[in-house]
Amino acid sequence: MINPKMYELGSRRSVIREIFEYGKLRKQEVGEDKVYDFSIGNPSVEAPAAVAERVKELLEVNPSTLVHGYTSAQGDPKARQAIADDLNNRFGTSFTGSNVYLTCGAAASLTISLRSVIDSENQNVMVFAPFFTEYRVFIESMGASIQVVPASFPKLDLNLDAFENMINDKTVAVILNSPNNPTGVVYSEEQIMRLAEILNRKSAEFGHPIYIISDEPYREITYGCVPPFITKYYANSLICYSYSKGLSLPGERIGYILVPDVMPEWQNMYAAVCGAGRSLGFICAPTMFQHVITKCAPLTSDLSKYAANRDLIYNGLTELGYECVRPDGAFYLFVKCLEDDANAFCMRARKYDLLLVPSDDFGCPGYVRIAYCVSADTIKNSMPAFKALAESYK
Amino acid sequence: MINPKMYELGSRRSVIREIFEYGKLRKQEVGEDKVYDFSIGNPSVEAPAAVAERVKELLEVNPSTLVHGYTSAQGDPKARQAIADDLNNRFGTSFTGSNVYLTCGAAASLTISLRSVIDSENQNVMVFAPFFTEYRVFIESMGASIQVVPASFPKLDLNLDAFENMINDKTVAVILNSPNNPTGVVYSEEQIMRLAEILNRKSAEFGHPIYIISDEPYREITYGCVPPFITKYYANSLICYSYSKGLSLPGERIGYILVPDVMPEWQNMYAAVCGAGRSLGFICAPTMFQHVITKCAPLTSDLSKYAANRDLIYNGLTELGYECVRPDGAFYLFVKCLEDDANAFCMRARKYDLLLVPSDDFGCPGYVRIAYCVSADTIKNSMPAFKALAESYK
Repeated sequence: MINPKMYELGSRRSVIREIFEYGKLRKQEVGEDKVYDFSIGNPSVEAPAAVAERVKELLEVNPSTLVHGYTSAQGDPKARQAIADDLNNRFGTSFTGSNVYLTCGAAASLTISLRSVIDSENQNVMVFAPFFTEYRVFIESMGASIQVVPASFPKLDLNLDAFENMINDKTVAVILNSPNNPTGVVYSEEQIMRLAEILNRKSAEFGHPIYIISDEPYREITYGCVPPFITKYYANSLICYSYSKGLSLPGERIGYILVPDVMPEWQNMYAAVCGAGRSLGFICAPTMFQHVITKCAPLTSDLSKYAANRDLIYNGLTELGYECVRPDGAFYLFVKCLEDDANAFCMRARKYDLLLVPSDDFGCPGYVRIAYCVSADTIKNSMPAFKALAESYK
Repeated sequence: MINPKMYELGSRRSVIREIFEYGKLRKQEVGEDKVYDFSIGNPSVEAPAAVAERVKELLEVNPSTLVHGYTSAQGDPKARQAIADDLNNRFGTSFTGSNVYLTCGAAASLTISLRSVIDSENQNVMVFAPFFTEYRVFIESMGASIQVVPASFPKLDLNLDAFENMINDKTVAVILNSPNNPTGVVYSEEQIMRLAEILNRKSAEFGHPIYIISDEPYREITYGCVPPFITKYYANSLICYSYSKGLSLPGERIGYILVPDVMPEWQNMYAAVCGAGRSLGFICAPTMFQHVITKCAPLTSDLSKYAANRDLIYNGLTELGYECVRPDGAFYLFVKCLEDDANAFCMRARKYDLLLVPSDDFGCPGYVRIAYCVSADTIKNSMPAFKALAESYK
């Protein structure tokens, strides 16, 4: 009478978490600066000072019952409006607070969105490889099956031919993730337009909407490009956002789902989102950080540090002969292994205290993910280890 | 392609939330002090000053990447240990941090616990009427059916005869809630012992454990009694706790599940809890408030105010002729309506700007729930309205 699937999920853990935990132990053993831990997307850049100032202001000005009290399930009206205003300012949209549902971060945004559209276990949700490993867990646990569209080489962008061949009348949604985890690739406007065209055509053919669930925690972390804002290209889109990465608040579990009013049935969808949140046990997003967002929605951490890191690691590794796509966003580099088996490659890298994540669970074997949201020194100091690793294969 | 059950859950809302939203509008219309809103269990007593001090200290002493960073999914080790220490000090138990899994509050504790034990839709989970309305939502959305044990009159304690007749081989768990929402009743040690005896006997008979899921957000809010600590009476118990009520932090979504090491399969259950949290989209409990708990776990708000309120409203209403059980805990009073239909009674009460919650969804028709976590003035000033309401039935 213990759910075996949950036991399995809990005892196996995610590979990423496992490496991260190993790294913590290893650092205790040999010293913090001797381990090059590229395993986890934990932002290394401080949150802007305005966050702490806002928290202190809240505590000084208001009674605690207000600062820490329940909000409506969909979130505090001011926070919702601040998010809509911020999007409108940046993308020329015209949302209101009514389009915004605050969540406990991106994972919650995804499970709630999936729960809102999945209705039977015959349905499927599509993802493009390589994809963030937890999508499989979320899709399957919300009751559908996952369909993985194979990766598109060498650019690792959307494999739209394969997508069009694979989509079927049981498809209820496709998850998009741009800038992408684990590759850092930002999908082009041209590809988004073609994806929208396919989805419109297939929705008409199958007689039901097929939703884009756009997972955008890295939207603000880009290097000279702006990812196309999905609702402008495809109406049946749910935008899942988190302030974990752009505002460096990953532990505070604050994000949102945007249900755009261009979606024909947006009000019904919004109600379903409220119902899904309720059914999964999300009462409201953490209140104090809702109030932080009211003030800080337009801000980001100093993201230039990730840009510098990107150049440092991309240039360093390509000079050493490693193959990878130059990332346009996020803080990940997806590097081809020097042998076929990514797990074996990662275990060998571990001998040099390089902690890399094998790509098998991302649906694209033979690669490793490097999360370069670390200090510049970690990157610099890791280069001899990467060099030694490469030489060990010669 | 919108999940109709989620639409239904989201558009109907909980009755309590609906009355709460009505109350907010009505207050804008006629003035804050003219509406006697007894609808929602939102603590009216300030959090202890130590909470704000701890937040400020965290922000001053640590880099923001530490204060706001991810923790392990099960929570920060120091927070988990602090919770175990607090329980051990108060209940003479001997838990460690390994028994504690931090959650985003009581609702999350419940959905995760239910997900950990429910494995097939043929199973059922039992609740004792009257019960907190959302139990139905959580049980059904985690894939089992709910079995409601009828209320026991006049004491509104556990109806153990009915329970014993109803429990069957498809029962995986029973939810306990003491101090109880909506009655304020604290179940006696004698009843807990008899419940444990029945469960042990039935577990043996059916050949599988039947779990107690003990929902205890009101554990600290009692008036001269200490609720029996469940794991001391029954090993197969999961304790679901939230700091929402005792520490007045309802919006911050911080609580825990205790998987006691007296449970024969506690390590497997703990793994299932981790898996269930992962599958529902809970990455970790909000980090800053985890660190608050590390310091504040043994504290509570000034709960004497609820005790004063309890006397004020219980004495006031019984003097006016209303019938109710004198609560030993929580901040709810469960009052017999002056007509059979609780909804009609609540609508009539609304004419006097008394916002009461009808008991139908609590599985015990003909009553109203009064949440007296309000100011003493609200209670005093509401008495003429309660008097006029009673007289309108004469």
